[in-house]
Amino acid sequence: MAKQKKPARPKARLPKGLRDIGAGEIRAMDRMLGAIRGVYESYGFEPLVTPAFEYTDALGKFLPDQDRPNEGVFSFEDEDEQWLSLRYDLTAPLARYVAANYDALPKPFRRYQTGPVWRNEKPGPGRFREFTQFDADTVGAAGVAADAELCMLAADCLETIGIPRGGYVIRVNNRKLLDGVLELIDVDPADPDHAGQRLTVLRAVDKLDRLGIEGVRLLLGEGRKDESGDFTRGAGLAPQQIDTVLGFVGAGSEGRGQTLTAIEGLVAESAVGRDGLAELAEMDTLLSAGGFEADRVAIDPAVVRGLDYYTGPVFEAELTFEAETEEGGKARFGSVGGGGRYDGLVERFKGVRIPATGYSVGVSRLQAALQALGKASANSVEGPVVVLVMDRDRIGAYQEMAMTLRAAGIRAEMYVGDSGMRAQMKYADKRGAPCVVIQGEDELARGEVMIKDLVEGARLSEEIEDNVEWREGRPAQFAVSEGELVEAVRKVLARHEG
Amino acid sequence: MAKQKKPARPKARLPKGLRDIGAGEIRAMDRMLGAIRGVYESYGFEPLVTPAFEYTDALGKFLPDQDRPNEGVFSFEDEDEQWLSLRYDLTAPLARYVAANYDALPKPFRRYQTGPVWRNEKPGPGRFREFTQFDADTVGAAGVAADAELCMLAADCLETIGIPRGGYVIRVNNRKLLDGVLELIDVDPADPDHAGQRLTVLRAVDKLDRLGIEGVRLLLGEGRKDESGDFTRGAGLAPQQIDTVLGFVGAGSEGRGQTLTAIEGLVAESAVGRDGLAELAEMDTLLSAGGFEADRVAIDPAVVRGLDYYTGPVFEAELTFEAETEEGGKARFGSVGGGGRYDGLVERFKGVRIPATGYSVGVSRLQAALQALGKASANSVEGPVVVLVMDRDRIGAYQEMAMTLRAAGIRAEMYVGDSGMRAQMKYADKRGAPCVVIQGEDELARGEVMIKDLVEGARLSEEIEDNVEWREGRPAQFAVSEGELVEAVRKVLARHEG
Repeated sequence: MAKQKKPARPKARLPKGLRDIGAGEIRAMDRMLGAIRGVYESYGFEPLVTPAFEYTDALGKFLPDQDRPNEGVFSFEDEDEQWLSLRYDLTAPLARYVAANYDALPKPFRRYQTGPVWRNEKPGPGRFREFTQFDADTVGAAGVAADAELCMLAADCLETIGIPRGGYVIRVNNRKLLDGVLELIDVDPADPDHAGQRLTVLRAVDKLDRLGIEGVRLLLGEGRKDESGDFTRGAGLAPQQIDTVLGFVGAGSEGRGQTLTAIEGLVAESAVGRDGLAELAEMDTLLSAGGFEADRVAIDPAVVRGLDYYTGPVFEAELTFEAETEEGGKARFGSVGGGGRYDGLVERFKGVRIPATGYSVGVSRLQAALQALGKASANSVEGPVVVLVMDRDRIGAYQEMAMTLRAAGIRAEMYVGDSGMRAQMKYADKRGAPCVVIQGEDELARGEVMIKDLVEGARLSEEIEDNVEWREGRPAQFAVSEGELVEAVRKVLARHEG
Repeated sequence: MAKQKKPARPKARLPKGLRDIGAGEIRAMDRMLGAIRGVYESYGFEPLVTPAFEYTDALGKFLPDQDRPNEGVFSFEDEDEQWLSLRYDLTAPLARYVAANYDALPKPFRRYQTGPVWRNEKPGPGRFREFTQFDADTVGAAGVAADAELCMLAADCLETIGIPRGGYVIRVNNRKLLDGVLELIDVDPADPDHAGQRLTVLRAVDKLDRLGIEGVRLLLGEGRKDESGDFTRGAGLAPQQIDTVLGFVGAGSEGRGQTLTAIEGLVAESAVGRDGLAELAEMDTLLSAGGFEADRVAIDPAVVRGLDYYTGPVFEAELTFEAETEEGGKARFGSVGGGGRYDGLVERFKGVRIPATGYSVGVSRLQAALQALGKASANSVEGPVVVLVMDRDRIGAYQEMAMTLRAAGIRAEMYVGDSGMRAQMKYADKRGAPCVVIQGEDELARGEVMIKDLVEGARLSEEIEDNVEWREGRPAQFAVSEGELVEAVRKVLARHEG
């Protein structure tokens, strides 16, 4: 073999829109996911894991705001020339799973799933190409009791992870109501020729939060030019049609009963509208029976959700408290999850309509909300106790101290690097160690170990101006006999708990 | 818009080599991963999450048994024409992470990570294209104390998840020893011209378990034809060279001290061999100081590990008990994890050699081992209590019963499907419900609910032959007043615990 030229060094960089997650955030996220899992489990949902990628045609194209084919997903060809795609949500794989295993599953099938999903989209601030969802779905239940249950589950989840009552609201609507409105303005929602227009109306209404009523009005009409000058074509409705749609969208009031009455006046002449109204009224009854009043679950005709596949109830979990925006202002935190009924998704495979409804949490958004509320902070001391290596010839003994601590259930490690005392102390600080264990020549001669409380030490060193005084006083460190190691470390840990 | 022809229905199928994982296996796996995480944490490692894919050049090509470029990984092009690949292990992303964040990290940097990895390989029985690894690595520690620690951690992990002492052994070796042997037979391991031959020798020795000594002898020589007739080219060593290599490979004995003595006789004349011997001797000392004797951590010169990048200590976690093979015979369970020192991996990016060592658990293999030992079985009752819907007009009341149970910490759901009593009972059975709650007209009139113990019911129905007697006796079901619902269900749950 001839010697080859050394290849250029690769750059140690992440592809855009991806990120690494460090220990503090992982721990906070695990706590949150654990709490959500607890609620999902308590409601009787079972875990499921599906693979990261599937046949592209099995996933289908059900991305919000994604009209063009092959966009929005990461795809690659298998060796037998079949296309595979990374999942872009957890609903499409569920539909494939249910269709493939239908006969063996209990009906209804109730599963939860969490994991990363991938979107091949332009990343932006807080907008990643890999992010985590946490879904609960009920497949095979046609009645809205399943939808009402998901709204209650959504509220319970938020309270369990620490969002106070009043800090959130689950907003519910029903797609059949908007279809009723469309029917009344002669945009027949059942006519395939109107499918594109209907979708444009849905997506226009979905942008109410972002664009305000006048922005939506433009999108329902001829179209809208945004700040950058880009023009979005509108749904092409006439002014009177637009007024009817906006009248419906704005029909929400505080009480669910009032809102239902207002909606009834608007859609009663449409059969599909009456259907939607009956479903919403039944959900209202069930929610009230469960003690979930409008302060937790409200009816809001402005909720549509961006996905085309919803067929009935839709709901959105929104945080109502204000948080700082990226621009430095303040704004409502907004949506952290949502879902709805999608009775057609399994039908794609089986040709048989199978009712289904689901709820999906946007994990990063929710995590950011907890952080804004100060409820996602890491425990103050999470690092391991570090046993310093004072004498390389005695690492067997230091290793044993770390083992002794671990055997007592205390997180501990011997320093395994190659540096001296000063670097070892810096290391322990950086790791967030609650304390270090030191046994130099002197301590060894006396059969002792020195425990140095780093948390207390840091506090004291802030207080004590006089460096000399501090060094001489040696605060926050004390010697104990070797046999008292565990007890002494426990004492330090107890100081800093909670 | 013209009406479009309906596209053909997609098939609900999984790509080959991928699988779905159901509730029972997920729960068992979560328990196992939780136990491993506990051990990793106790040793002071911190969690890290990196994305599923990276720039292809940043990952590099470090697959075992993969000499050809672009094979073995799933790759796709980004819109700016840069290649991305799904990670094939957790070590390559770690190297990228450390190189990118070196200055900010504590040194040594100790992280653990778990998650799926993907291999674009031919799948086979028990061989998937997506599987989970669970790694712990120490980066920035040159001394073998870090390697010895990982061997102890590996042993602790296995015992913590339920592998009894004696049922496993961590086998340790050092790549420098084999390099010493190669030096002595004039295959200079430092000479790039010999790199291919060295790798062929390594991979031949790595196949000892599978092929036996005579198979390895062929692969060290001219080559070997397997049962299918495929010929694998060998390392081309002369018979005397082969004898020297095999003499080293077979030098292990029961005690670590004996093995060290035997090895010393074989490699003492090579500088790199003496280096390896000193490192192994130091690990022996540290392991003994920690109380880890040869029944838990043995020295075995036959361990090499398939990866090219190892530079020093290598170790393999092996289960020594027998389990049924796919062919129906019995065989040692074999490797469930391993690792070693790779001092060159971060250097690819930074040009500076940064010492590192790691341990990786093959999660599915280990899970299968626990199953074989009968230690991964799901709890007998994990399903939710199911409240049956006897009267559709009263679902508000049934929903409230489910809520009451949940509020008491009991996993419970109201049946949300559309079927009658018989199907609801079948559903509860299929869900593994411990009991169902029934309130029909009669119970309602008496202000009662009926609790039906499904576990006890199934047991009794097996015992009682006479179906009439069974139905009349109504065993395993009892009525309580509505207010005693929680207490009564708790009683049933307590019957079936443990």
